Amino acid sequence: MIEEKLKRVALKAVKEGGSILMQHFGKVKSIDYKGEINLVTEADRQSEQRIISIIKDKYPDHRILAEETGDSGESSPFKWIIDPLDGTTNYAHTYPCFCVSLAIEHEGELIYGIVYDPVRKELFIAEKGEGSYLNGKMIKVSPTDELNHSLLCTGFPYDVRDDESNIVNFRNFLVKSQAVRRDGSAALDLCYVAAGRFDGFWEQKLFPWDIAAGSLLITEAGGKLSNFNGEKSSIYAAEIVASNGIIHHQMMDVLKT
Amino acid sequence: MIEEKLKRVALKAVKEGGSILMQHFGKVKSIDYKGEINLVTEADRQSEQRIISIIKDKYPDHRILAEETGDSGESSPFKWIIDPLDGTTNYAHTYPCFCVSLAIEHEGELIYGIVYDPVRKELFIAEKGEGSYLNGKMIKVSPTDELNHSLLCTGFPYDVRDDESNIVNFRNFLVKSQAVRRDGSAALDLCYVAAGRFDGFWEQKLFPWDIAAGSLLITEAGGKLSNFNGEKSSIYAAEIVASNGIIHHQMMDVLKT
Repeated sequence: MIEEKLKRVALKAVKEGGSILMQHFGKVKSIDYKGEINLVTEADRQSEQRIISIIKDKYPDHRILAEETGDSGESSPFKWIIDPLDGTTNYAHTYPCFCVSLAIEHEGELIYGIVYDPVRKELFIAEKGEGSYLNGKMIKVSPTDELNHSLLCTGFPYDVRDDESNIVNFRNFLVKSQAVRRDGSAALDLCYVAAGRFDGFWEQKLFPWDIAAGSLLITEAGGKLSNFNGEKSSIYAAEIVASNGIIHHQMMDVLKT
Repeated sequence: MIEEKLKRVALKAVKEGGSILMQHFGKVKSIDYKGEINLVTEADRQSEQRIISIIKDKYPDHRILAEETGDSGESSPFKWIIDPLDGTTNYAHTYPCFCVSLAIEHEGELIYGIVYDPVRKELFIAEKGEGSYLNGKMIKVSPTDELNHSLLCTGFPYDVRDDESNIVNFRNFLVKSQAVRRDGSAALDLCYVAAGRFDGFWEQKLFPWDIAAGSLLITEAGGKLSNFNGEKSSIYAAEIVASNGIIHHQMMDVLKT
């Protein structure tokens, strides 16, 4: 069991980060213009600073790995892994699909994950050994047992112009599933697999802060994670396949083609 | 100007249709099993029946074209075009992205469009010559002037296994835009272009009820519509390109490659 104080701090951090994002949301209509790019960066940076300050206030010795400021480097058994704004492109275009993602590792093991979508006001929480929850209600992965009937999700890297490999995967999954969504927030995609809204998800070129919280949500909701070869995944390994477990081997077959 | 009674009936229809969808939402976790397919069909059918009964109660002579029941065939200058559940696959999988779409034609011209997303409680309304609105606030298309900086959206037909042509378009847009979303509701996609959340949208194999309301939202928000050859579009022509107008010719160039 994790101490209640740790959970309270994590909750406060994602809620206040989300609140900062909402204050700036919609005030920038696109990222075409130099000044407006800076506005997005500003929301991202302010969200991260607030989250870090909330954590540091209660746990000054804990190590922090955050998207904008990197690894704080403390030698603590606790590491907080923070994405202050997952879905930056959506946010910049005012497409309302983004979130704050926060995970806690203890001695290298994920023990707590929390993802907050401030638009839908959906709070996803997973605690090691205690299950996954959406707004306080336990969630489970879907019972879908055929890839053919599955709703999947993926994402493409920023450098898709130089690396089209996922376009081949996208095509292969598109013709073998019911449909493939692509909504631009890996952290939310993983939460949606945990909640049974999607049956599976795959993506490459990811960072630990994109997938740390969502990964624990998946396993605590009864789902399965692996790398693209079907082996044990790591949040530090840049690629992930997540599913309800049942269709996992069918997804592996497609990724191998 | 359209008479207020027509608008009130349209609003009541989409709100009550949406309410029926929400009553059934989440009670079916996938469409893998025969009984569960029927549950989705039931929500769709009940929503349509309620919408039609609300319209018929006030306008018994008006013509109605609806997804489930087809064309009622009256020889009236008014035609109501109804999609009682746009985003059926999402709905069936509990992915919360779907809507009710309703448009009114008068003597062959779209005069009113209304799209209701009962999850986000977003109501998009367009009236010929009077602009487009989201929850009462006027909306405009985005000012994005480069395809390279654009957030686009598309959809794939149910028979994608037999017709992969849009996969080629998807790949071509992916490498020439900032990102391409695919969220599974054409009616909402069009509303999002109208609201500036997306800069452009294209899709083939659509039906009039998918795009009628959204089309008026686009033009009343200052956007542009065409077919895949850049010519005047029709809601009866099965294909559509919608944009903020500024990037329209750049989208045409990609579709021609």
